Amino acid sequence: MSNRKTVSVFGLGSMGYGIARSLLRAGHHIHGHDINPQLVDEFQAEGGSRESPGNIVKTIDAAVIVVLNAAQTEAILCGEAGLVDTMKPGSVVISCATVSPEFAQRMEKQCSERNIHYLDAPISGGSAKADTGQLSVMAAGSHEAFEAAGFALDAIAETVFKLGDQAGPGSAMKAVNQMLAGTHIAIMAEAMTFAISQGISPEKFLEVIPQCAGTSWMLENRAPHIVNGDYTPRSSVNIWPKDLGIVLDVARSTNFSAPVTAAALQQFLAAAGSGLGAEDDAAVAKVYARNAGLQLPEEK
Amino acid sequence: MSNRKTVSVFGLGSMGYGIARSLLRAGHHIHGHDINPQLVDEFQAEGGSRESPGNIVKTIDAAVIVVLNAAQTEAILCGEAGLVDTMKPGSVVISCATVSPEFAQRMEKQCSERNIHYLDAPISGGSAKADTGQLSVMAAGSHEAFEAAGFALDAIAETVFKLGDQAGPGSAMKAVNQMLAGTHIAIMAEAMTFAISQGISPEKFLEVIPQCAGTSWMLENRAPHIVNGDYTPRSSVNIWPKDLGIVLDVARSTNFSAPVTAAALQQFLAAAGSGLGAEDDAAVAKVYARNAGLQLPEEK
Repeated sequence: MSNRKTVSVFGLGSMGYGIARSLLRAGHHIHGHDINPQLVDEFQAEGGSRESPGNIVKTIDAAVIVVLNAAQTEAILCGEAGLVDTMKPGSVVISCATVSPEFAQRMEKQCSERNIHYLDAPISGGSAKADTGQLSVMAAGSHEAFEAAGFALDAIAETVFKLGDQAGPGSAMKAVNQMLAGTHIAIMAEAMTFAISQGISPEKFLEVIPQCAGTSWMLENRAPHIVNGDYTPRSSVNIWPKDLGIVLDVARSTNFSAPVTAAALQQFLAAAGSGLGAEDDAAVAKVYARNAGLQLPEEK
Repeated sequence: MSNRKTVSVFGLGSMGYGIARSLLRAGHHIHGHDINPQLVDEFQAEGGSRESPGNIVKTIDAAVIVVLNAAQTEAILCGEAGLVDTMKPGSVVISCATVSPEFAQRMEKQCSERNIHYLDAPISGGSAKADTGQLSVMAAGSHEAFEAAGFALDAIAETVFKLGDQAGPGSAMKAVNQMLAGTHIAIMAEAMTFAISQGISPEKFLEVIPQCAGTSWMLENRAPHIVNGDYTPRSSVNIWPKDLGIVLDVARSTNFSAPVTAAALQQFLAAAGSGLGAEDDAAVAKVYARNAGLQLPEEK
């Protein structure tokens, strides 16, 4: 393959693993990095490369960062032997974690001072779409950053929204999406348990509501987890105190009042605080059920 | 037409008018009743009948009640010369207003004491689907009530959910749907205005979010109203203090804590309280814009 590129993927979690596989499938040479060596083993067995970042980042064309938050992103970029100090000029950082627009702008500045391109590139779509290379990417960055990242976006995304010519708007749109997505999960759980309190079975809820005006993408995706009593984490409760926290921090910094999001965040905090943090985010329904003395379906 | 039935439709508002037209189109003999004589004139011009209820309700096979709330429904059923005292045994009341399950049960009891069937039959789908006879009906009632109402449901509904064999579960499912629908409108407005506060245009919001996990039926239906600056009421702000009020009254009566719905209700109350009650419900965005010092799009 003439256009074979070399890429490091940082973070082989539910999203990063799918991204790494999609890049591999497109014929590129992919290094997988994760603090969990089992995930790196697994990726190696699929044809990925296992190298210490210190040995190879000076050779890579792109780094895709798919970690949990801004702190982890900053450690990879600006920590000891971080990418900013080691990647070659003209290469590109594709930053996928949910972070504040201000953080994205600061990282872009750090990179550009070393002639490294930076793409503010949060993702949406869930692990299934990560795996099939069909993510939506909310992207912002310079023309050069888009050029340098193009081969990778082709491999991982079905849709790339070009939201601006410098970092920030990608992360802003992601914050808007998370505000909606998180609140939709909480209100789905609120409505599902309210239905149970009125004698409506979870199965009947799932049969009727998706055909009515009260439906949402998240309802159709997450309500089946409750009906099946299956809280295997596709996306965990812990994501939401983090992501809605970012949303509300950004909102507060501009005196934007967001009362519905704030109410949803409290429910996820109650879920995380009562030991449900590592379960699937549909487990926020357990907070409602406990508060109302209701029984949710057992695992089938 | 051999199976031509005679029906009174009470309430020729945005939903009732479409229902009356759909029944007419199916070949039935339809009386239209409304406190607004203009609507009755209009319906008469389309082939409807204009009669005082007192003269004709003893002859009708079915009454479809599509009024604003429980009080209006009760006045039509149990007020002076109400349907319960005048309709013939074996006829059916199809009750479409959003009411509490307990109210539906009480009305069913009143009707059944006079051998009138009662179908607890709240509707979903909006005025466009009412007009084309493609509503969703969340129905509950006796086998006899379903039998007697069948011809009318055939004319007005695309989908009839049979939710129970006595009144109550139809209204309960409608309350669940309204909990979701109302909250989805409020969080749509919250996210749209938050996006504007971050420099994202309403057009860009509408381009991106419907393709991401943050979308909802209500977002896709109502966000264009904001983008176009068009607050012509398809469904008004005033619906939501009423419907979310019913939801939260029912929730409170069973000690069910619904904090996200409660936050959404506050925003609709602020909209109604500041003079926006008769505007389209997307005008709840004006509360957010005012609170954040933002400008929404002007009418195009």
